[in-house]
Amino acid sequence: MIDVIIFGNGNVATQLAKAFYKSAICNLKQVYSRSTPSTYFSKKGIATTQDIKHIKNADLYLIAISDDAIKSFSKQLHFQGKLVVHTSGSVSMDELECNANKGVFYPLQTISKNKKISFKNIPICLEASNKKDLDLLTTVANSISNKVHYINSEQRKSLHVSAVFVNNFTNHLYKIANDLCDEYKVDFAILKPLINETAKKIKTLAPKDAQTGPAIRNDKKTIKKHLALLNKNQHEIYTLLSNSISKQTKD
Amino acid sequence: MIDVIIFGNGNVATQLAKAFYKSAICNLKQVYSRSTPSTYFSKKGIATTQDIKHIKNADLYLIAISDDAIKSFSKQLHFQGKLVVHTSGSVSMDELECNANKGVFYPLQTISKNKKISFKNIPICLEASNKKDLDLLTTVANSISNKVHYINSEQRKSLHVSAVFVNNFTNHLYKIANDLCDEYKVDFAILKPLINETAKKIKTLAPKDAQTGPAIRNDKKTIKKHLALLNKNQHEIYTLLSNSISKQTKD
Repeated sequence: MIDVIIFGNGNVATQLAKAFYKSAICNLKQVYSRSTPSTYFSKKGIATTQDIKHIKNADLYLIAISDDAIKSFSKQLHFQGKLVVHTSGSVSMDELECNANKGVFYPLQTISKNKKISFKNIPICLEASNKKDLDLLTTVANSISNKVHYINSEQRKSLHVSAVFVNNFTNHLYKIANDLCDEYKVDFAILKPLINETAKKIKTLAPKDAQTGPAIRNDKKTIKKHLALLNKNQHEIYTLLSNSISKQTKD
Repeated sequence: MIDVIIFGNGNVATQLAKAFYKSAICNLKQVYSRSTPSTYFSKKGIATTQDIKHIKNADLYLIAISDDAIKSFSKQLHFQGKLVVHTSGSVSMDELECNANKGVFYPLQTISKNKKISFKNIPICLEASNKKDLDLLTTVANSISNKVHYINSEQRKSLHVSAVFVNNFTNHLYKIANDLCDEYKVDFAILKPLINETAKKIKTLAPKDAQTGPAIRNDKKTIKKHLALLNKNQHEIYTLLSNSISKQTKD
């Protein structure tokens, strides 16, 4: 068994703890959190501590705290010869400033604390400074996910910003559509099959080949009709994205 | 059986023709197209014509041609007492200028000619000027789809622009992410589970409640890191959408 200790009490920490608890290969030995730990841990008989001095011995120490806090938090960890990893998409491996081997264990997904998730289909992006550590991370990642990738810090940054485009910004476009539906008294649910199909389409088609709509057709008449329905903020977003799409055709 | 005649040779015309051909309630009596009709029709023994004077008698005439052409094309159709509908999201019912009863039969989906689709889960948005015609359209729509909605011209326009946000613009965000992945030599496929989850999440959660990421957290440090990776066009889109998200929290 691989002994794992998790630092953190947020969404990622809690969901990873649940996954490791169920894993046949990992032993979730302890969870550290600054605030009162989730009742999930005591219910399952998992050791917790709020004192950094009481951290037990383990094979893998996993820091799942907010991105901003990783650097300063890591300075307190003295586990020479052991492996310390963080779970962030935007922080490079070198920002871990602990006296230990370093790595990254980044699950690429939108993770909510109370929504039941399975890591099985969530890509885990791994990085380590030597092969032995990467092998250990691979074993751990394979025990919870079928999608394990080796991604260096530079690549991970580009994935993280890409994730903002496909998740955060896409969701915001859904929100704008929902606002428009509310304004014109249309049930937003009517759009859900289209939302689903849009995501599904790129499973088999590159996004540039899946592009449809007035901007790619340069259909100015329809664009003008659309703009007339929008408020200032929606108008700006519509214009910028349409211009970006029509530039794409000239690539 | 309800006799249906379709005008058009594009994606929507072809896909609707295939659906009506299989429907137990509709008889696809004829397909009109200006250009040479798809070989699909001759293979299935469906009558076609390229001459507007040779249009047969039917219960429903369905215009599935480009939005810009609907108005002028409809002027040629003299089917007094019969029902003429168009299939456009952005054209109001009144733009049909034919001597006939008028209506709209708008399938809300991204439809490609050669991709096999089922209308079963595609919302069909109906409008007609009287109850009898609306009943006929309902019967026809129910024969191919489980999602039939009554939507007036004003509502349909708002749906159409909303569809641009959730489909065309979302796909463009996928394209930007794909460009970034290519640039940093990361497999775009790693993002597909996240894309899928983003679409799936709003089945149970309103988009405003599903919003995550640096913009809604006002995490300026991460936003700055992201912007440093982007070209001018991506930078503009990132900034505008992030500002729009952070305004949202103050709503």
